[in-house]
Amino acid sequence: METLSQWRCHGGTQGVYRHHSTSTGTPMTFAVFVPPQHEAGFVPVLWFLSGLTCTHANVMEKGGYQALAAELGLMIVCPDTSPRGEGVADDPAYDLGQGAGFYVDATQAPWSPHFRMRSYVERELPALIAAKFPADVRQQGITGHSMGGHGALTLALRNPKRFRSVSAFAPIVAPAAVPWGEKAFTAYLGHDTSHWALHDACALIHAGARVPDILVDQGGADSFLESQLQPHRLADACAAAGIPLTLRLHPGYDHSYYFIQTFMPDHLHWHAERLMASPAG
Amino acid sequence: METLSQWRCHGGTQGVYRHHSTSTGTPMTFAVFVPPQHEAGFVPVLWFLSGLTCTHANVMEKGGYQALAAELGLMIVCPDTSPRGEGVADDPAYDLGQGAGFYVDATQAPWSPHFRMRSYVERELPALIAAKFPADVRQQGITGHSMGGHGALTLALRNPKRFRSVSAFAPIVAPAAVPWGEKAFTAYLGHDTSHWALHDACALIHAGARVPDILVDQGGADSFLESQLQPHRLADACAAAGIPLTLRLHPGYDHSYYFIQTFMPDHLHWHAERLMASPAG
Repeated sequence: METLSQWRCHGGTQGVYRHHSTSTGTPMTFAVFVPPQHEAGFVPVLWFLSGLTCTHANVMEKGGYQALAAELGLMIVCPDTSPRGEGVADDPAYDLGQGAGFYVDATQAPWSPHFRMRSYVERELPALIAAKFPADVRQQGITGHSMGGHGALTLALRNPKRFRSVSAFAPIVAPAAVPWGEKAFTAYLGHDTSHWALHDACALIHAGARVPDILVDQGGADSFLESQLQPHRLADACAAAGIPLTLRLHPGYDHSYYFIQTFMPDHLHWHAERLMASPAG
Repeated sequence: METLSQWRCHGGTQGVYRHHSTSTGTPMTFAVFVPPQHEAGFVPVLWFLSGLTCTHANVMEKGGYQALAAELGLMIVCPDTSPRGEGVADDPAYDLGQGAGFYVDATQAPWSPHFRMRSYVERELPALIAAKFPADVRQQGITGHSMGGHGALTLALRNPKRFRSVSAFAPIVAPAAVPWGEKAFTAYLGHDTSHWALHDACALIHAGARVPDILVDQGGADSFLESQLQPHRLADACAAAGIPLTLRLHPGYDHSYYFIQTFMPDHLHWHAERLMASPAG
């Protein structure tokens, strides 16, 4: 693992790191904020998965998490959204290929050699974080934005023992039922939709996956609300499953990082309350 | 004036606007954050002048001012750092030409036709802000970073009645005495250094300019500290003049926006306390 940058920030350290990923077969870059509390011991970890077109840098620069994460004592880990580079398949569209990994392991050509973001964010990077950073891996939460909200929900639903808290900003809650997801899942996973269900939050809940509760914030002026995000599908699924969902619709807010930074404090508090509660035993 | 973007943010509006500047003879882009308190009346204004290579966007995206500005009720105005475009003179170096206006009116070729950033930030843009935004122009403060810290200090010292508060992040306090300023002032203002004094904070103070007090934050690991910034010069000038200077050196912090975002809340409080105090009468 190579350190690309480190900045002192709010008494902690915002860093950017690169390593060779055996999952993707490429160099992968990620950002980690280590709060000042690490000097007294390992600290809880909050994962932030980003949306289409983003790298690790967008939320690191525009998400506005550092001040409160430093106060609460949260480590924040921000992976990239796909493998990248000249030898990696790509598509001219913004919603497929590099910058659009959708947190799945592709089984279809030309994507399968490198587009293994599920393995990367679910196994490989967590092991690296545990080995290289002062992370209390018993206290992990996960959040994300848009495609990364999809990633956060599905990772939490598949790994409820690992993630003690989950939230999302404007997530794709049912990718198998909306154009972004249909396009990406067809390309990465093939036409047999039975392979899609492990990567669709609503389908996972219908199939019995459970988390203790979920926080979702959604902008009312988000141009993707009706076509791609459709949070009512998550509300229906959670209601049927008895999962407490706090779903907040904020008039006037769009899909941007200005929306994210506005509600970031609420999400950090949500996770801190759950990660810093006494262990169930 | 044209609206390029507007985002809802922390209950206020972060916008980006463009207009044709008669000072620079070019289109100029700037950012304004309007806090929610504008609905109850005009609000105090804090100007943020940016540093070398920056546009209006760097501090808007990375400065982290929106949350607290929304809470305190401060409008934040962020101009660009120079005229730009194909017909505008430039230099391959990062510290001269486009992105490096130094807040002066150039008198020398090839800069003099467009590089008139003093007129732009001191007169033209304030008039536009007063006309188009809910700004209480009796309550204005100014801050900035690096080259923009130089701009903030010199504008405040030349206009003590307009700016009721002034602060800076890692400012160039004595441009006439350091390489960045010597190079830029020679290019823009010519070799006769008597024309430089109006644009050098320390020289202005030595010549009798006064402000009520100054806050300066400086990173101790800033790679430009010794060569270009030299805050001890400002400390000496303020001591000799009896200007109360709060100069804080922060070990480990560098010249980046992670340094700026860390101390931004202290600066917003500094300005809010002074702008929202009762008028002297």
